[in-house]
Amino acid sequence: MMKVGIVGGTGYTGVELLRLLAAHPQVQLTAITSRKEDGLPVADMYPSLRGRVSLAFSAPEKAKLNECDVVFFATPHGVAMAQAAELLAAGVKVIDLAADFRLQDTAEFEKWYGMPHSCPDLLKEAVYGLPEVNRAAIKQARLIGLPGCYPTSMQLGYAPLLAQGKPLVEESSLIADCKSGVSGAGRKAEVHALLAEASDNFKAYGVKGHRHLPETVQGLQAIAGRKIGLTFVPHLVPMIRGIHSTLYATILPEARDTDFQALYENHFKGERFVDVLPAGSHPETRSVRASNMLRIAVHRPGGGNLLVILVVEDNLVKGAAGQGVQCMNLMFGLEEDAGLMHIPVMP
Amino acid sequence: MMKVGIVGGTGYTGVELLRLLAAHPQVQLTAITSRKEDGLPVADMYPSLRGRVSLAFSAPEKAKLNECDVVFFATPHGVAMAQAAELLAAGVKVIDLAADFRLQDTAEFEKWYGMPHSCPDLLKEAVYGLPEVNRAAIKQARLIGLPGCYPTSMQLGYAPLLAQGKPLVEESSLIADCKSGVSGAGRKAEVHALLAEASDNFKAYGVKGHRHLPETVQGLQAIAGRKIGLTFVPHLVPMIRGIHSTLYATILPEARDTDFQALYENHFKGERFVDVLPAGSHPETRSVRASNMLRIAVHRPGGGNLLVILVVEDNLVKGAAGQGVQCMNLMFGLEEDAGLMHIPVMP
Amino acid sequence: MMKVGIVGGTGYTGVELLRLLAAHPQVQLTAITSRKEDGLPVADMYPSLRGRVSLAFSAPEKAKLNECDVVFFATPHGVAMAQAAELLAAGVKVIDLAADFRLQDTAEFEKWYGMPHSCPDLLKEAVYGLPEVNRAAIKQARLIGLPGCYPTSMQLGYAPLLAQGKPLVEESSLIADCKSGVSGAGRKAEVHALLAEASDNFKAYGVKGHRHLPETVQGLQAIAGRKIGLTFVPHLVPMIRGIHSTLYATILPEARDTDFQALYENHFKGERFVDVLPAGSHPETRSVRASNMLRIAVHRPGGGNLLVILVVEDNLVKGAAGQGVQCMNLMFGLEEDAGLMHIPVMP
Amino acid sequence: MMKVGIVGGTGYTGVELLRLLAAHPQVQLTAITSRKEDGLPVADMYPSLRGRVSLAFSAPEKAKLNECDVVFFATPHGVAMAQAAELLAAGVKVIDLAADFRLQDTAEFEKWYGMPHSCPDLLKEAVYGLPEVNRAAIKQARLIGLPGCYPTSMQLGYAPLLAQGKPLVEESSLIADCKSGVSGAGRKAEVHALLAEASDNFKAYGVKGHRHLPETVQGLQAIAGRKIGLTFVPHLVPMIRGIHSTLYATILPEARDTDFQALYENHFKGERFVDVLPAGSHPETRSVRASNMLRIAVHRPGGGNLLVILVVEDNLVKGAAGQGVQCMNLMFGLEEDAGLMHIPVMP
Repeated sequence: MMKVGIVGGTGYTGVELLRLLAAHPQVQLTAITSRKEDGLPVADMYPSLRGRVSLAFSAPEKAKLNECDVVFFATPHGVAMAQAAELLAAGVKVIDLAADFRLQDTAEFEKWYGMPHSCPDLLKEAVYGLPEVNRAAIKQARLIGLPGCYPTSMQLGYAPLLAQGKPLVEESSLIADCKSGVSGAGRKAEVHALLAEASDNFKAYGVKGHRHLPETVQGLQAIAGRKIGLTFVPHLVPMIRGIHSTLYATILPEARDTDFQALYENHFKGERFVDVLPAGSHPETRSVRASNMLRIAVHRPGGGNLLVILVVEDNLVKGAAGQGVQCMNLMFGLEEDAGLMHIPVMP
Repeated sequence: MMKVGIVGGTGYTGVELLRLLAAHPQVQLTAITSRKEDGLPVADMYPSLRGRVSLAFSAPEKAKLNECDVVFFATPHGVAMAQAAELLAAGVKVIDLAADFRLQDTAEFEKWYGMPHSCPDLLKEAVYGLPEVNRAAIKQARLIGLPGCYPTSMQLGYAPLLAQGKPLVEESSLIADCKSGVSGAGRKAEVHALLAEASDNFKAYGVKGHRHLPETVQGLQAIAGRKIGLTFVPHLVPMIRGIHSTLYATILPEARDTDFQALYENHFKGERFVDVLPAGSHPETRSVRASNMLRIAVHRPGGGNLLVILVVEDNLVKGAAGQGVQCMNLMFGLEEDAGLMHIPVMP
Repeated sequence: MMKVGIVGGTGYTGVELLRLLAAHPQVQLTAITSRKEDGLPVADMYPSLRGRVSLAFSAPEKAKLNECDVVFFATPHGVAMAQAAELLAAGVKVIDLAADFRLQDTAEFEKWYGMPHSCPDLLKEAVYGLPEVNRAAIKQARLIGLPGCYPTSMQLGYAPLLAQGKPLVEESSLIADCKSGVSGAGRKAEVHALLAEASDNFKAYGVKGHRHLPETVQGLQAIAGRKIGLTFVPHLVPMIRGIHSTLYATILPEARDTDFQALYENHFKGERFVDVLPAGSHPETRSVRASNMLRIAVHRPGGGNLLVILVVEDNLVKGAAGQGVQCMNLMFGLEEDAGLMHIPVMP
Repeated sequence: MMKVGIVGGTGYTGVELLRLLAAHPQVQLTAITSRKEDGLPVADMYPSLRGRVSLAFSAPEKAKLNECDVVFFATPHGVAMAQAAELLAAGVKVIDLAADFRLQDTAEFEKWYGMPHSCPDLLKEAVYGLPEVNRAAIKQARLIGLPGCYPTSMQLGYAPLLAQGKPLVEESSLIADCKSGVSGAGRKAEVHALLAEASDNFKAYGVKGHRHLPETVQGLQAIAGRKIGLTFVPHLVPMIRGIHSTLYATILPEARDTDFQALYENHFKGERFVDVLPAGSHPETRSVRASNMLRIAVHRPGGGNLLVILVVEDNLVKGAAGQGVQCMNLMFGLEEDAGLMHIPVMP
């Protein structure tokens, strides 16, 4: 059994890690830290875990994280980069669910997250934890920066188009119109996320600019090996879990005969957690609810020159905790889908 | 035109007062106070009011509330009792939507609200603003303590049973199983009221005891002229507005031949805002959404000896702001339904 | 008082017409037809109307629609075109909320609605009921084909860009990513619209092609006086009312210095029901809930060359019944906002 | 591996059986029947099952149900009683999720379900599938009538009170105020269950009488060994899954010193799927979402003589499919929790 620790288990990605790891056949949860909740049994905060997680939160200094095989950070931005070096030095692998190890350009990091990056050296070593793009590197990694929820859906949605030797679409003018459930905002007491504010309502937000834009551009450029241009417009959906990204790309004249359905099916052949739906499908977020699946459909409305790619994922699973477990499995030589075979909950 | 001021217009009852008063034909909104938002146009906080409310929030000392005809307090408990005396002395009538002037027993007030009552003399003068019970007194009042949202539904639901000369039901063992939308908790940033927490979920709360219990008992005893006993169990419904109270009462042997449907219809005959539905009906909260109506249905399951009274209201209208406007209309000799004729929004 | 009849009052646009017209100061509701519900009081089907609408549904042949001043059709496609001629001949004006008089090209109508058009002559006379575009013609019209809900938001959202003498954006590649609440699908018993299916879920639909595409293209071309190209992707939001359209357009090189915020504000200056929000705003559907307002915000993310226009409306009001009443007001020389001054319901 | 067949897999209890059984370590799904969907891959109707269930629906006559070890009926009432005899004769065990084998009194069955009972002999043999009450009989059973969703919560909620040698509460006047998510109504296209009708709304229904009343009374009387009287009032909650039952019982004078918290904890000691919460708790439906757990809290408001028992379950799991699998495990000597260890999905 692997010994696994979690730093910051009180938010939604933290409790989702607990749900997944508590039932993972090769994992022993050994520590969950929270300075504020030190001593509180986890199941007292989350009754859904009663009888399944017997750990209590502990203050970080008592948690003996150094004895873990791997530690997940489900913390606000800035925490992991302060603690990763010590853990790595002790031989503990680190998977960060926040943004500390996502952006390779520290100036970009400082601009979007409003804090200096405290360990640029580790950042260079960090591997971006998107298995369908980066599997080989993840297997060798000590330190993972997990993708954000929106970026996962955008990168996997565009990957087959951009990963070809030459451009198929106008790569300078991609448009991603994305919609997320409110759990993406985290378990923070904020008025705009109250049920009385956010339900029976729909809005865009962050149209001017959103932190997930530079991360996604970096990822797409890594896939393409070329510069790309992206407009990203996030929206808030009155539901708990789920992201639906509607991705637009204009087909280049020389690529108009491409069989895009086949392109996507081939690209993801053999992937355990990416499902390319039959032509003409409309994936629903509930078809992946509470599971690590991501589903994609490829459309070309009216047979024209605009591709419309529909992508759904559960933002807390494939967009966060599940992807973290998937990376952990790869890093430790386990089956990639170990502990991740939950069938989506429907209805 | 009457000059109307609002103290504390940033919460849900405040914005609902604005919605109702801005369209009231005999009202001129003259001041809305908020120390924190001093200078902010109301419509910047609530875009729904753009083009309809041109006022800005102002700090209390700038608001010239003394020049109003009436001032509503849509504030936390404790604010109105600190300011009412000065307004009344200036000839301004006061309607408090909080609890300061509800409970005549100051010891009860202190027990449930955790603060001493600062003006017991005014409290004695205050009239409980439930028009269907207290209309004559309200017409003469300078100072109104508006009922809470749950208590309105419970009192009007039980009133016809209790208002008779002799008991019809076991008055010592009434049970009110009540369900409320989340706007009843106010516009406060609290984790338990987030959409990600409260939607797709149902729970009871405050079963041990809830502030609306002593208020309701006081009101029911005033109606009955006798001691009554009540168990009140509130629940949280994943919806924005609406209260549904399911009221139970055991019919006394000597009252088993009573035509309760007729009793209710007669009791509320001529009431503009209470609608007794035909026998066998199940009122829905949406049938009163965004309106001042309260609807009631009377059941006797299986023809047995237990009465089941179903009551629905919009907690922000008949349960708060609308009832306040209804009282204002009475206090100033206006038509009781002036500015309150909104047809419920369905679907 | 004008005499108003409604054909087909049992669906959502029908009941919304009832809500608006029952409170309209210059309207007398005289007939509501439904063959299936003949004799049933309207308020028995819709308890929200108890005490406010005393009419019963009547079979069409009993309804004396010929004696009305105006008749609204809130019926399935195909009904209005079968009955309009007779009403017009009797001097009754007709406003159709379905699609019968929207598409001037009968071949397009047949293609998308699967039935032949039975009165192409009347179709030529029909005026497209979008007041902000067609006000003068509406004032003179006998017969109105009301826009669909999505098309209203797309046309008003793009109008300021297209109504200029020369193109400002790439008019051949507009993209409209639209999101609608489920009431847009009507009051039909269909599995996909059940709460257990549609709530806590998000999906696109009709990506291959949707009936509102040809209507919108026709309207946009009429505004521009030029050919345009549009991709329209509708999505279903787990909420009752509201449409949010996110509109994309690429700014032409020669137009990059345009002040688009000013362009929009000027274009809609004086419009009672279109509200251009301050730069940087994100309109929410709830800010127009149950009202005839449509709100727009103009964005240029990152200062780049892609315009992002955000538009919200209530699909049942400005997208259907309210727009119908607005047209009626114009046709009969009433104030354009008569009976339409409802303040949006928030929260 | 056990061979398992499902008759009628297209509804919510059917797809939930598929979710549970497809991941059950000792089960091989061998047939799912649907005459209407013959030949359709199950995963085409339920994309959540893509990659996890490869079966297609088949017409009953092709399904070779006789070769199964056990067959579940997730069908409308009346189907199982027509087919059970043949399956039992072939040595196949039968678990019915509908009502055919719940009510031992065939007159009651006919009254509430509007059809004669076609196999009263089998009915006598049938075991009521509530493991926490009937475990020994279930282990020996060939034929199980599974409890309804509401009855499960009411019976387990009242069981500790009624199972004592002498009465502790007034057993003739129990009141169960129950609230259910809409999936309880099944996957039927009905207007009242549309999202546009049922969301942002709350109502009671069936107050006059509901099919689950006689079933629950029968069960409670079996537990008590005495006559009991129950009033049952069901309500519809705008959420997908979950039942919350608020149960009332008046403590008898001679039982007022009872430690009810201890009584409940002792009664359910060792039960894998019943969790008695600490005193003062308020269970939430989401704490059992998508799991087979049922949680109970015991209250005595104000220290008075009314007990208030709060019970939550997932109506599709412990209230239907999960309980069916639990019975199957018992019938075949498997671990009672095999395939049922899903941790509730939160948020």
